[in-house]
Amino acid sequence: VARPHIVTLTTDFGLVDHYAGAIKGALLSVFPEARIADITHAVQAFDVLDGALAIAESYSYFPSGSVHMVVVDPGVGSERRPILATVGEHYFVAPDNGVLSLVYAQADSVMVREITSSHYFRQPVSSTFHGRDVFAPVAANLAKGVDPAKFGDEITDYVRFAAPQPKAAADHSLRGIVLKIDRYGNLITNIRASDAPQLFGENPPPFRIVAGKETITEMCNHYAQGAPGELFAIVGSMGYLEISTNRGTAAKLLGIGKGAVVSLWLEGAAAASSHHG
Amino acid sequence: VARPHIVTLTTDFGLVDHYAGAIKGALLSVFPEARIADITHAVQAFDVLDGALAIAESYSYFPSGSVHMVVVDPGVGSERRPILATVGEHYFVAPDNGVLSLVYAQADSVMVREITSSHYFRQPVSSTFHGRDVFAPVAANLAKGVDPAKFGDEITDYVRFAAPQPKAAADHSLRGIVLKIDRYGNLITNIRASDAPQLFGENPPPFRIVAGKETITEMCNHYAQGAPGELFAIVGSMGYLEISTNRGTAAKLLGIGKGAVVSLWLEGAAAASSHHG
Amino acid sequence: VARPHIVTLTTDFGLVDHYAGAIKGALLSVFPEARIADITHAVQAFDVLDGALAIAESYSYFPSGSVHMVVVDPGVGSERRPILATVGEHYFVAPDNGVLSLVYAQADSVMVREITSSHYFRQPVSSTFHGRDVFAPVAANLAKGVDPAKFGDEITDYVRFAAPQPKAAADHSLRGIVLKIDRYGNLITNIRASDAPQLFGENPPPFRIVAGKETITEMCNHYAQGAPGELFAIVGSMGYLEISTNRGTAAKLLGIGKGAVVSLWLEGAAAASSHHG
Repeated sequence: VARPHIVTLTTDFGLVDHYAGAIKGALLSVFPEARIADITHAVQAFDVLDGALAIAESYSYFPSGSVHMVVVDPGVGSERRPILATVGEHYFVAPDNGVLSLVYAQADSVMVREITSSHYFRQPVSSTFHGRDVFAPVAANLAKGVDPAKFGDEITDYVRFAAPQPKAAADHSLRGIVLKIDRYGNLITNIRASDAPQLFGENPPPFRIVAGKETITEMCNHYAQGAPGELFAIVGSMGYLEISTNRGTAAKLLGIGKGAVVSLWLEGAAAASSHHG
Repeated sequence: VARPHIVTLTTDFGLVDHYAGAIKGALLSVFPEARIADITHAVQAFDVLDGALAIAESYSYFPSGSVHMVVVDPGVGSERRPILATVGEHYFVAPDNGVLSLVYAQADSVMVREITSSHYFRQPVSSTFHGRDVFAPVAANLAKGVDPAKFGDEITDYVRFAAPQPKAAADHSLRGIVLKIDRYGNLITNIRASDAPQLFGENPPPFRIVAGKETITEMCNHYAQGAPGELFAIVGSMGYLEISTNRGTAAKLLGIGKGAVVSLWLEGAAAASSHHG
Repeated sequence: VARPHIVTLTTDFGLVDHYAGAIKGALLSVFPEARIADITHAVQAFDVLDGALAIAESYSYFPSGSVHMVVVDPGVGSERRPILATVGEHYFVAPDNGVLSLVYAQADSVMVREITSSHYFRQPVSSTFHGRDVFAPVAANLAKGVDPAKFGDEITDYVRFAAPQPKAAADHSLRGIVLKIDRYGNLITNIRASDAPQLFGENPPPFRIVAGKETITEMCNHYAQGAPGELFAIVGSMGYLEISTNRGTAAKLLGIGKGAVVSLWLEGAAAASSHHG
């Protein structure tokens, strides 16, 4: 694949310290022509699932041949391996801790290598900052056009985890959870079209969603459809069911957070999640 | 106008979620040579005036031919139109909700088009994320050199609002408000040179500013002139009257916020705001 | 030195206001090919030492010929001089307030010029925003290849301060302080290898560190070695002794902040800091 010289960054370094700056320097000193695009540096500290969501929801919008550096790495310096994954026409460098799990889950073709060619690393390699010393120089060389095979051999036992899935419950609900709360206070659940196809279609049947102490029965097509102060369901830009409110924060109205249970009942139908637990 | 391949981003997406990352991907996949410059992603959520200030205060420093993407878009997916504005030698893509009002207000020449050529859009277009699906691909094509006329026809009924203006009050004061508080705690008022020319000149006359419970009578030329803990007035880099303190936060000293009233009395003169309400 | 067209930004402008955006515009309008890399805009407001740490810990990872713009400038508009420093093969533009002190301290060759060639400035020069009007256009011209000598004459009385150094105390401890707390809650002290060489070696002797109400006696090689909830010492990526905990925040466990005292006793040795106070 031709390389457009793009390197994206998804980390939990935050925006206050110099860590993201040191990474950019380490990239540019190997490949000054790299086009660096920050996806986010505000993944929750040490939170591999949060990082997995951020990269899975954004990488595919970048051009083929982009290199994605994903550094949420509480195990830095331990035995956990550095990996290079080729997923479709995108390249990823990351610690092998599952942070690419949701990228793998969407993909047709995945090939993972352990990065072992230490002559590409910044020397000496610290035991606390592989983003700077291992991942950045490997990403820069990849963006430059180096063949992935040069960095190490294929492995098949790489770490992956399943995203939390909604489940059919005894009370005939489909029971999901809040995956994350975004900047606007939208509650993004883990319920997708494949979990409740009728609800995501043109004319959704009557339904009830119970979240916190509230019951939601309205579906909106866009945020501005909602009446002020009213909670509604909406299919968000990530393809998940969200609970939202117009020009306000649903998370505050509901008083619930990440991980909270969201139950869905569709009228005249048992829960649709036949393919889950 | 020649295009320097620059696309600036001013949004209320925040820096935590992947939204700004998805936008950058959508831009780069249309035009990998785009030079993306973040102005800010921390416009207050849904706050069109806050976004209007951010872009109006920064776009003119960029080179001619730059494309400015401004996405503060609480009405995304509703009937509000996407627009492309040519203002002097700068291009803007934004929702037609007034977020460009303060750009229009400063400009000699404004020409606004409704963006209707949907073959430029990312398909399918979501109803919740036009930043990614509509504005980014249009901005990328503009940066690449596509003629603005290709995106849609001129409109004249685009939305614009007037920034809040200071007013002459019955007590002979000029009554303004706090437009915003910046990172340093400076209170940026809506009072400009044209509102009180004497005050902004070389030898300002004695004056009184009342804000919160304090009265300010000193004008400084730069921040370090102020004595520690003392409040003073200053003409800030945006051209507005600010209330500041040296190495501290005036907003905390005063205990007032955005929207608070600031009254100005110039000695021996009725309020100068003849051209306002 | 050849110039790779890179300009890095280290400021206390924050990420909310338009100030960083205006700077990028001012850079790009002089030199549209500049590759801008944000190091951080979240230096603590007015905190020159915090800025000094951020740039000193990151600039050397960038390629030779990079231009580093460092704007933490509480004295903007006063008599303080704008300077251009050439340090090894890197260029710096900054106010002469000591913000480059820790860069100078690490360097073999330092040459500092006062920037006086005002024809490079954006006109008119405001008295409150030299980042935009002075430093950005000078940085852009430097990145473009202009000879440093063109901007002004060498000076030798530039401002520099010593970073706070650990000291040998009467109780035979080496007494350092917490320099900063990073995003993960690691307490970064000012104790370095040269201050306690034995501790930083392969087989460190038994030791005691007292910080807040806790005593730390364990040294880890990487963060994941620590047991949950346990505090340990570690040599961080900046080369300083840090107090950390595995997947948690040491700063919260200890309840201490920036500037707090950290005392180190090495078994069977008086404090090693012969070259300090």
